[in-house]
Amino acid sequence: MPTPVQQAEPAPPASGRGKGIVVAAALALSACSTVQSEPIASAAPAPAAAPSVPMGQQWLYGSAEGAIATRQTFGALTSYATAKARTRPADSVIIDDATGKPVPCGTKPLAAVFDADETLIWNIGPMRWFALRGAEFDAKTWDQWEKTGTGKAVAMPGAIEAMAALRAAGITPIANTNRSAANAAGSEQTLAAAGLGDFRHGETLFLMGDDAGGSSKDMRRATIASRWCVVAMAGDQLGDFRNLFNKPELPPLQRRALATAAPYDALWGNGWFLFANPVYGPSIRGGFDDIFPAETHWEPQQ
Amino acid sequence: MPTPVQQAEPAPPASGRGKGIVVAAALALSACSTVQSEPIASAAPAPAAAPSVPMGQQWLYGSAEGAIATRQTFGALTSYATAKARTRPADSVIIDDATGKPVPCGTKPLAAVFDADETLIWNIGPMRWFALRGAEFDAKTWDQWEKTGTGKAVAMPGAIEAMAALRAAGITPIANTNRSAANAAGSEQTLAAAGLGDFRHGETLFLMGDDAGGSSKDMRRATIASRWCVVAMAGDQLGDFRNLFNKPELPPLQRRALATAAPYDALWGNGWFLFANPVYGPSIRGGFDDIFPAETHWEPQQ
Repeated sequence: MPTPVQQAEPAPPASGRGKGIVVAAALALSACSTVQSEPIASAAPAPAAAPSVPMGQQWLYGSAEGAIATRQTFGALTSYATAKARTRPADSVIIDDATGKPVPCGTKPLAAVFDADETLIWNIGPMRWFALRGAEFDAKTWDQWEKTGTGKAVAMPGAIEAMAALRAAGITPIANTNRSAANAAGSEQTLAAAGLGDFRHGETLFLMGDDAGGSSKDMRRATIASRWCVVAMAGDQLGDFRNLFNKPELPPLQRRALATAAPYDALWGNGWFLFANPVYGPSIRGGFDDIFPAETHWEPQQ
Repeated sequence: MPTPVQQAEPAPPASGRGKGIVVAAALALSACSTVQSEPIASAAPAPAAAPSVPMGQQWLYGSAEGAIATRQTFGALTSYATAKARTRPADSVIIDDATGKPVPCGTKPLAAVFDADETLIWNIGPMRWFALRGAEFDAKTWDQWEKTGTGKAVAMPGAIEAMAALRAAGITPIANTNRSAANAAGSEQTLAAAGLGDFRHGETLFLMGDDAGGSSKDMRRATIASRWCVVAMAGDQLGDFRNLFNKPELPPLQRRALATAAPYDALWGNGWFLFANPVYGPSIRGGFDDIFPAETHWEPQQ
């Protein structure tokens, strides 16, 4: 094994602010409305060094590995959905929260439901802006991004090919996102300009404010399932699948156990497809005791 | 959209050392032997705050999303490999670097080739140790981990089920890792204790030092392909697939273009399966100009 110091590149400068962005953007885009309140400023001292690109953004937005992981997920979703379309399924992959059972398909037309941010498009415009300025995420800037970001958000690797393959198979792509209904035109234009095709508010684009559900997408999912036979669903956050799983207030390992328990565990990769997003979200939480179980603790003999 | 400051958790304290760990561990475990040399210490000032769990570790080792992304990849690999086994393929998914063509299968027995670290097992023992101490990765500690980590490394989510399904389909799992040949017994025991079954040095476990290839796995891949019909290959780093792709010295977006160009792009998710690893590796690199193309630059109107 090589000696790291001989071969290492300089580590990026510490950036508490950079991490603040990640955590804050997490909470806005993934809308975890139950997290305990503490101002970021109290925990994120301004660094001496210039801000650096957060690690998660380096991996997701910059690396071959991040792009390949993304393409693999689009490929798996497309193969699954087009196979399902050939033999119409009896049930949608959307769960009726009243019964805990999938919504029946009947004779409804076929659809696949996607989150938008970090599931169809990468929001590299504002992510760069926040990180470069060492600024916290702020809702005012994000609101401007929804209105004016057209042409600056990029389709995720494999997304354009996936949308084309789904439409060719008679499956309509639908977006269910926590972007604001007040900015519907901007989000329609942003998705179209990224090359993803036609998403129309109220028909194939569902936004926060469309109903009384707030940041929970469950009510919008129920509306979609009442009109469509949903053969696949995709997102980067648990709330994109079932709000019951979101639970940012749970300790990470308990939250993981909840989302991967039977019977719904069988849906991951089989109807439900999760995109890696180590940039923001309730997934990026936890101290040493939260992440590392006691039975795995190890130390070298000095 | 909620106001982040009302709902944010405290951001983790800045940790240049934490980032140092990531970069250094990257270089050791992924063995990018061509990176320019600069001591990490020069770029990673000791932070005032206590070390925190690096973001990438929070996502990968702690979150539901990280576990689900991992399980999805094992599921896709298992489906692909078992389908291939039913109709013996003509070619391995290992490329002969002399010809750029896949190695023929002939009548060789079926196998699937995996990297070990962050592909079969999570090395949470030493990762916790490095992060908790705010210590840089060091080869001496890692060498002790290879020798004494048995029982402290955990099988990745979905790995145990995948090994069982592959073996049941007559496909032998093989590990090709840059752990040291000198520590073969420790690595055999670590994989077995994690519940992954039998990996034998020289038969189904290939290590750095087995040949003159050093940290390049190409020569070991050629040896494996001479004995086995390899129906699937998996890793978390480009070097786990073809050393030609590793190229940590390339700017990130050029490296991404190289690894996702035809004809090999068709193999990702179809024979080659990449696991998300935002914790370490040559994937975690780049400044603002490396990651964010000029045409995507955006700023709010103040």
